[in-house]
Amino acid sequence: MRVLVFLDGTPADPDVAQIKVDDLGLMRGDGVFETVLVDGGKPRELRPHLERLARSAAMLDLPEPDLAAWERVVSLVLERWAGGPEMVLKLVYTRGSDGDPAATPTGFALASEIAPSVLKARAEGVAAITLERGFPPDLAERAPWLLLGAKPLSYAVNMAAVREAGRRGAEDVIFTAADGSVFEGPTATVVLAKGRTLYTPPSSIGILPGTTQAALFRGAEKAGWAVKVEPLTVRDLVEGDGVFMASSVRKLTRVHTLDGERLPDSAAVYAELVAAYEAEYA
Amino acid sequence: MRVLVFLDGTPADPDVAQIKVDDLGLMRGDGVFETVLVDGGKPRELRPHLERLARSAAMLDLPEPDLAAWERVVSLVLERWAGGPEMVLKLVYTRGSDGDPAATPTGFALASEIAPSVLKARAEGVAAITLERGFPPDLAERAPWLLLGAKPLSYAVNMAAVREAGRRGAEDVIFTAADGSVFEGPTATVVLAKGRTLYTPPSSIGILPGTTQAALFRGAEKAGWAVKVEPLTVRDLVEGDGVFMASSVRKLTRVHTLDGERLPDSAAVYAELVAAYEAEYA
Repeated sequence: MRVLVFLDGTPADPDVAQIKVDDLGLMRGDGVFETVLVDGGKPRELRPHLERLARSAAMLDLPEPDLAAWERVVSLVLERWAGGPEMVLKLVYTRGSDGDPAATPTGFALASEIAPSVLKARAEGVAAITLERGFPPDLAERAPWLLLGAKPLSYAVNMAAVREAGRRGAEDVIFTAADGSVFEGPTATVVLAKGRTLYTPPSSIGILPGTTQAALFRGAEKAGWAVKVEPLTVRDLVEGDGVFMASSVRKLTRVHTLDGERLPDSAAVYAELVAAYEAEYA
Repeated sequence: MRVLVFLDGTPADPDVAQIKVDDLGLMRGDGVFETVLVDGGKPRELRPHLERLARSAAMLDLPEPDLAAWERVVSLVLERWAGGPEMVLKLVYTRGSDGDPAATPTGFALASEIAPSVLKARAEGVAAITLERGFPPDLAERAPWLLLGAKPLSYAVNMAAVREAGRRGAEDVIFTAADGSVFEGPTATVVLAKGRTLYTPPSSIGILPGTTQAALFRGAEKAGWAVKVEPLTVRDLVEGDGVFMASSVRKLTRVHTLDGERLPDSAAVYAELVAAYEAEYA
C-alpha cells in the first residue's frame, strides 16, 4: 500500500513516473526531506518535522515552505491510506526543474508500509560501528555552506556509511570526529543512558536536531529522568548503561554491539525509555 | 532543444515526467553523474567521462555500468540532436526504485543547449572566493564511505557553495582545507599557471580527477609546457601567473578575482592555454 499526494493537493500514482528528469532534487540532490511516523492514523511530531523542513529549506535557500499546505497534504494522505496501522510518511521538497527561471519547488508526500528491516531493528536492536565523518565539531557555525545540520536529499554519504556497516557485519553507524566526539547516525540521533540521565550531543556541532530524541527527552523527564544535551565521546558511550539510536520510523533502537564489542545489556533501561516515549502518544 | 534517451535506448520526452518519486537518485541523491561537452557533433573526452562514471559507481557500490550501452545511448542522443553546435550532455545513473529488491538502476542521457551564464564565464572569466570544505587533505584514503573523489548526485553542498559565492558578489568557489590547501571548485578543477608550468592538486587528497584538466595538461605538454600534479595552497594561487577553473562545459575559465582581490592579468596565458586545449579536438 502506498499513497502519493503532491503539495498542491493532487493525488497521484506512485507506481507511475511523476518527476521530470531535470528536477534538481534528482540532478543535484538539491532539496530537503522529512520522514514522519504515523501510528493509528496520527502523525507523530508533525509540527517539529515541518519546522525542521522549513529550517532545512532556509539553509538551502529554498522558498519558504507553506506549512499549512504541508499539513493539508498530510491530511489528504491519511484520508486515502488503507494500509496497516503504522505508516512511513516521506515529505520531499526540491528546487524544481533546472533551467526554468520561473521554476517552482516540487513537493510531495509519499506514504508506505514499514519495512521488515525496521521491525527487526526495533525488536532485536542493532550492531553499530563508528565511522569518521571528517569534520571537526566546531565547523558547522563557521561554514554554513556545508549544510551541516540540514536534512538535504543529498544522502549518498549517509547511505554509503550504512553499506560500510553492512560490510563489517553491522547494521548502523555512529559518525565521529577525528577527536572521538560523537556526531549522529546516518539516519538517527545518538542517545546515551547513564544512571538516571539521558545524554545527546548538541546540534550546534553540525548534526540534525532529532525529533524523536526530543520527544523521548520530553517523555523521560516526565518519568523522572534528567536529560542533558552536551558533547559525548565514544568512550562515554562504551562506559554508559545503554546506547540508543532515535529515529522517527525505527523509534528507539538499542545498540547492542559497538565496533564489534558487546555492550552491557540495556534491556531494562530500554523498556523504561520506550514506555516514556510511547506515553507521549497515549 | 533537449533530447532525452534512457540507457536501454528508449527516447523520451524531457518535458514530461519520466521518473518515479521513489527513485533513490531523488530520495537519497543516491546515484552518480557526468557532464560531457559535445562540440560539432563530437563528445569531448567521452571515454574518460565514462570511466569516471564507472569509478564513481564503484565507490557507491552501484552495479557496474555497461560502458558500451552508455556509448550507444550517447550516439542515439547525437543522432536526434537538432540544436546548436554545442551541447551539454548529462549522463545520470541512479540506484533505481526504493524498496524493490529487484530494482535496476535508472540511467539516462539528457542533452541541452549551453546556458548563457556559461558563455559569459567563458568570455569574461569569474570572480571566485575560497570556502572551507571542512576536510583535511589526508581523509579520502582512510574514509572511503565519505565518497570523496566520486561524483554522486548528492551535490547540495556544491550548489550551496555557489550560492554563497553569489551572496559575496562572486560566481565561483575554490574549496580549501583548514590549513589553506586547495581542493577543487564545486563543479571544476583548479589549475595554476606559473612560468611555463601548469599545476593542479592530486586527486588523492579527495577531489575529482578532472577530465578537462587532463585534456588541457595533455595539450599543454605538446605545446611545450611542463605539468605538475602536486598540492597547492591559496598563497600559490595568488602568487602565480594565472588561476583557471577547468570543467567540461565552461572549458577553461579565468579566475580574474580571488576573495575580492584582483589577480594579475592572465589574458595572454589564457589564450595560449585555450589554443593548446582546443588543439586536442582540431
